[in-house]
Amino acid sequence: MLVDGRHYRSIWYDQDTRLPTIIDQTELPHRFVTRALSSATEAAEAIKSMRVRGAPLIGATAAHGLALALRDDPSTPALESAVEEIAATRPTAINLRWALDRIAKEARSCREEDRAETALRSAIALCDEDVRACEAIGENGLALLQARAAGCGHGNANAPLQILTHCNAGWLATVDWGTALAPIYKAHAAGLAIHVWVDETRPRNQGASLTAYELRQMGIDHTVVVDNAGGHLMQRGQVDLVLVGSDRTTARGDVCNKIGTYLKALAAHDNGVPFYVALPLSTIDGAIEDGLSEIPIEERDASEVREMVGIGVGSGGAVQRVELFSKESAVANPAFDVTPARYVTQLVTEVGACEASRSGLDRLRGMAEKSGVYAQRPVELAAE
Amino acid sequence: MLVDGRHYRSIWYDQDTRLPTIIDQTELPHRFVTRALSSATEAAEAIKSMRVRGAPLIGATAAHGLALALRDDPSTPALESAVEEIAATRPTAINLRWALDRIAKEARSCREEDRAETALRSAIALCDEDVRACEAIGENGLALLQARAAGCGHGNANAPLQILTHCNAGWLATVDWGTALAPIYKAHAAGLAIHVWVDETRPRNQGASLTAYELRQMGIDHTVVVDNAGGHLMQRGQVDLVLVGSDRTTARGDVCNKIGTYLKALAAHDNGVPFYVALPLSTIDGAIEDGLSEIPIEERDASEVREMVGIGVGSGGAVQRVELFSKESAVANPAFDVTPARYVTQLVTEVGACEASRSGLDRLRGMAEKSGVYAQRPVELAAE
Repeated sequence: MLVDGRHYRSIWYDQDTRLPTIIDQTELPHRFVTRALSSATEAAEAIKSMRVRGAPLIGATAAHGLALALRDDPSTPALESAVEEIAATRPTAINLRWALDRIAKEARSCREEDRAETALRSAIALCDEDVRACEAIGENGLALLQARAAGCGHGNANAPLQILTHCNAGWLATVDWGTALAPIYKAHAAGLAIHVWVDETRPRNQGASLTAYELRQMGIDHTVVVDNAGGHLMQRGQVDLVLVGSDRTTARGDVCNKIGTYLKALAAHDNGVPFYVALPLSTIDGAIEDGLSEIPIEERDASEVREMVGIGVGSGGAVQRVELFSKESAVANPAFDVTPARYVTQLVTEVGACEASRSGLDRLRGMAEKSGVYAQRPVELAAE
Repeated sequence: MLVDGRHYRSIWYDQDTRLPTIIDQTELPHRFVTRALSSATEAAEAIKSMRVRGAPLIGATAAHGLALALRDDPSTPALESAVEEIAATRPTAINLRWALDRIAKEARSCREEDRAETALRSAIALCDEDVRACEAIGENGLALLQARAAGCGHGNANAPLQILTHCNAGWLATVDWGTALAPIYKAHAAGLAIHVWVDETRPRNQGASLTAYELRQMGIDHTVVVDNAGGHLMQRGQVDLVLVGSDRTTARGDVCNKIGTYLKALAAHDNGVPFYVALPLSTIDGAIEDGLSEIPIEERDASEVREMVGIGVGSGGAVQRVELFSKESAVANPAFDVTPARYVTQLVTEVGACEASRSGLDRLRGMAEKSGVYAQRPVELAAE
C-alpha cells in the first residue's frame, strides 16, 4: 500500500543489499524508518521488540530470519538453533511457528550447500503468497461489506457504512493489503462510502499509531476513539459491523486476537452488530479446539502500560517518552484475549467466508484443497 | 483519606483564607497541588477542566461555587446567572444540578443579606453529608464484599478477594471515602485480604492516575491494567467482582458511568462475575427511566485522546505532554456510557443495597425516608 504516495510492502528483499528490509513500526506514526535485517538474531529482535508485528508479518519475518541464519551457517545444528531462537520471540501468533516449520522442512530436505538459496527463495515465495492471500481476503470481505451495506441501507455519501476495527490488521500487519483492512481498501476502491472507527488499542496503540496512519495515507475517512468507546457507539447505532484480524484461530473457530477484542465482540453481540474476523488460513491452528484453555497468552513488559511515546508538545517535533504513573503500582500486561466462536458472525479467509465452527472450517478446507492455490498454507487447518 | 500520611478531603473550606480549597486533580499523580477557589467562575472552571471530577465532588464544588457567587452578589439575578454558569459546565452528572438546586432553593428563601452566609453553611453541610453518605456506602459495600469472599472462598492472604474497578470512584471523586472505593477501604481496615485490578481508564487515565494513587497512599495491593484487559481477566477467573461508581442512575436502575463501564458489565455478565455499582442517592435521577435514550452524554475535547501527560523519561522529573497521533485523524471522545440495569447485580447506597430495578429503588426510598438521616438528599429519588 502507499506511504506518501509511494508503494511499499512491510517487508521486502532488497536486491542491492541482498537483505530483507522492514519498516520499523516502533517509529510510526512519528517517523518513517526502514531497517535492513542482517542476521537471524536481528530478525528475532525485530519480532520481539515489535518493529514488525501482526501474525502474517511475524511469519514472513521469521521466514526471512531463518534464511539469514542458513546463509551464515547452513548446518543442521545451526538450522535447529535458529528455529528455536526465532520461535521463542512471541508465543501467541501461530504463523511464527507455521512459517518456521515450512522453511525448515524445505531446508532440511536439501543438501547443506543449497539450503541458503532454497530458504531465501521460499521466504520470498511465502511473502508473495501472503500478498495474494490478503488481496483475496479483501475481495471476499468486500462481498460481506457490500451485503451488509445493502442490508442496513448504508454505504452512500449521506450514510457511509460504519466499520469498527481494533488494533492494526492492515498492510503493516501483513506483507501487503492487510487482513481486516483489506476489505476496507477494496471497498474504498469500489466506491462504497465507508467510515472507520479506529480503536486506539492500548497499550501499544496500534490503532491510533498504525491503522489511522494507514487510513490517512489511503485517504479513507476515519475517527480514532479510545478502546472504552466502542460499546457506547454500538449502543447508539453508530456501528454497522466490526471487522478485526486474528493471531490464532482454533479448529472450532475461537479467535485469539489483540487484548480487548473480546469486549468488542460482547458489545457487538449485545447490540446485534455483525462481528467479522479476517484471517489467512495460516493463522488457523487445527490442533486445538478451546482457545481459552489452550492458547498461551503472551505477557508483555509493564513499561508498555506505564509509558507512552509521542511528539513532545512544544518540543519542535522531538519524540519523547513519558511515564504515566508510579513504578510503585504493579502492572499486568496480557497481550491477547480469546473471543469464543459463538460471538463471531463470520470468518473471512482467502478462500471464502464461513461461520466460526468446525463445520464451517471443514467446508473452507474443502474449498482450499479444491482451489489448490494456497495448498501449502493451511498445513494445520482442521487437523484431527 | 491520606496523602503522604496526612488526612485530606478533596474539597474543604479554609478558615484562614475563607475560601473553598481543592486538590487540583489535573496535576495528579505527578504533583500534589492545592488551589483556592475565589469566585463562582473559578469553581466553574475547576469543574469544566476537571481539576475536580466525580459526580459527588462536582456537586460539592458546585455548591461552594454558588456560595462564592452569593458572597460577591446576593441579588436574585446574580444567583440565577451563577446557577446557569455552573450548571453548564458538565451535562451528564446529575449531582451538579442537584447540589445547585438545593443551595439555590435555600438562598432564594432568604433575605438577600443572609444569602451568602446561608449558602456557605449549606455548602459545608452538603460536604459533611457527602462524607457520611460515602462512609455508609463503605459499610454497606463491605457487607457485600464479605459475603462474596465467603461465597468464593477468597479474602485471605493466600487468595485475596479480586476486585476490578473502572475510573476513579474513590475519595478524590467525592469529598472523602469515595463510592466504589469506600467498601475497599473498609475491607482493608477490617482485615479482609483484597487485591484491586485498576483499569487505566482512557482517555484521562483516572484509574492509573487517581485510583492507583489512592490505593498506593493507603497501602492496598493493586495492579494497573489497560481497559482492554478486564474481559480477559474475567475469562481466566481472576476477578471475583466488579465495583464501580455512577454519574447518574435512572429510576429503573440503568447506570451512566465513565465510558467503558458498559464493556466491563458485559464481560462480568458473560463470566458470572457480580457487577456492583456504588452511589450516593444524590446520583439517582428519578425523573428518567431509559438511560440510553434520556441521559445526555458529554462529548469532550479531542486533545484528551490525542495527547497524554506524564513525567518525561530522562527529563529529571519534568511533566511533559506528548501528541500520540496526527491531527489529520479525527477523534470522537464520548465521556460516559450507559450500562442497562439488567447487567447490574446490586446498587450499593448509603441506606443499603438493592437490585437495579424500580422495585429495588422503591424499597431504598422507603429505607431512606425511614432513616431520616439523608432526608434532604434523594430529592429526585424515584420521583414519578
